Amino acid sequence: MELVFVGLGLNDEKGITIKGLEEINSADHVFMETYTSRMPDFNMGHFKSMCGKNVQMINRQCLEEDSGKIILTAAKSGKAVFLVPGDPFIATTHITLRVEAEKLGIKTRVVHGVSIMSAIVSLSGLHNYKFGKTVTVPFADNFSETPYNVVGQNKKLGLHTLCLMDLREAENRYLSINEGINVLLEVEKKKKMGILTERTPALGIARAGSDNPVLKADFVNKLVSYDFGEPPFSLIIPGELHFMEVDALIAFAEAPKEFRGLSK
Amino acid sequence: MELVFVGLGLNDEKGITIKGLEEINSADHVFMETYTSRMPDFNMGHFKSMCGKNVQMINRQCLEEDSGKIILTAAKSGKAVFLVPGDPFIATTHITLRVEAEKLGIKTRVVHGVSIMSAIVSLSGLHNYKFGKTVTVPFADNFSETPYNVVGQNKKLGLHTLCLMDLREAENRYLSINEGINVLLEVEKKKKMGILTERTPALGIARAGSDNPVLKADFVNKLVSYDFGEPPFSLIIPGELHFMEVDALIAFAEAPKEFRGLSK
Repeated sequence: MELVFVGLGLNDEKGITIKGLEEINSADHVFMETYTSRMPDFNMGHFKSMCGKNVQMINRQCLEEDSGKIILTAAKSGKAVFLVPGDPFIATTHITLRVEAEKLGIKTRVVHGVSIMSAIVSLSGLHNYKFGKTVTVPFADNFSETPYNVVGQNKKLGLHTLCLMDLREAENRYLSINEGINVLLEVEKKKKMGILTERTPALGIARAGSDNPVLKADFVNKLVSYDFGEPPFSLIIPGELHFMEVDALIAFAEAPKEFRGLSK
Repeated sequence: MELVFVGLGLNDEKGITIKGLEEINSADHVFMETYTSRMPDFNMGHFKSMCGKNVQMINRQCLEEDSGKIILTAAKSGKAVFLVPGDPFIATTHITLRVEAEKLGIKTRVVHGVSIMSAIVSLSGLHNYKFGKTVTVPFADNFSETPYNVVGQNKKLGLHTLCLMDLREAENRYLSINEGINVLLEVEKKKKMGILTERTPALGIARAGSDNPVLKADFVNKLVSYDFGEPPFSLIIPGELHFMEVDALIAFAEAPKEFRGLSK
């Protein structure tokens, strides 16, 4: 009677930890989902030969409509491992399943994986303790002023904002950095609070955790037409920049020299 | 000419990813530091037999006073891997070394590791997008009002605060959760803003990422005398709580039933 949530980390089948792999080895049932996050280079064939186990894929419906009954039933009769992209509970989706399991008397454990949250902060060279609240920028058909307001709130406190770009894995749709910037600019046009203008510095990151992440820092009017290639995407709108953070943006993200004038 | 920063993840030698281990396999020189964070169950003997390489330990002085010359020199003549607890750049310490390497024309890459930042959020069952700015609570001999002010600022916005507890690895000293709460209570006594009182709910976490993490949620007057065992320690002061977050605190952190009255 045990359910172990194991993080797959980022990008491909090699993002899992040694500890995570060991948990799979001693499991009676192995489940996996890939709908909360994209793992662009994940190869199931390689993964199965790495872990030597059959892996049953779980879709959104199974978890959200059937409350993950398949997983809970398996966990009642032995050790079940549930593989989740990134870290298992950074997306709030699976917290309910863990609470449900504990209520049924099933012991649960977590083997963490690399999360996109820390990977992006880490890649950016910006200082971790200077990030405020994180926000997801939704598709234009699901328009919301919230991301703009969150960036504004953080900026007022001098803090950076990590903006995750929305995704619809089932439809293979990923909000691009360019579209995300346009969503923010549209709110600016309406509210005119100067929170995100053409001259606002920003940093776009594509494919964090892969072998070829793309980082580009520039002013919004330039960044909006930059080609970041394939997803997943994220965007950082910096608050106050320390000169060492500007140094990092120049060294790692090809920020233009004018960024020198931004630091305090 | 390459320098690869590899995250060791949390707790022990099995916290590294498969990808991280592969980078070591193909390295000419392998360096490691353990002073920015504690890995309580790390066994160097096991690690060396896992990766089949000699690992040279690096201390704070080498990096901060000598600008990591040993590492940069090695990276100039081949592929150097630098192993860092957690994720390589969540602690700001190593960003300078990466900037320095890039300036010298040494190609740098990052293989991420599990960070304490996301592991704690993940374990807590609290919602990731509801966390504000993170803060470190310093030892009493290095007293500061900042952590109290950050908690206050976050609370005003309804946001949770992740408080990391300071550590002095060289002296084997770790600020306990109990001491950390007392530092905050002392500022409350002086400023009387009602930000952290005896009746404030809080969540202490010890040994995140290990096989036996301890989570305990309670009101501050109870939590201040709770025995969390061995380090490392962290503390979360929640802002507004959703009822699903309260559910999680009851299921995973033995929160008292009175917590039900806290959710909105």
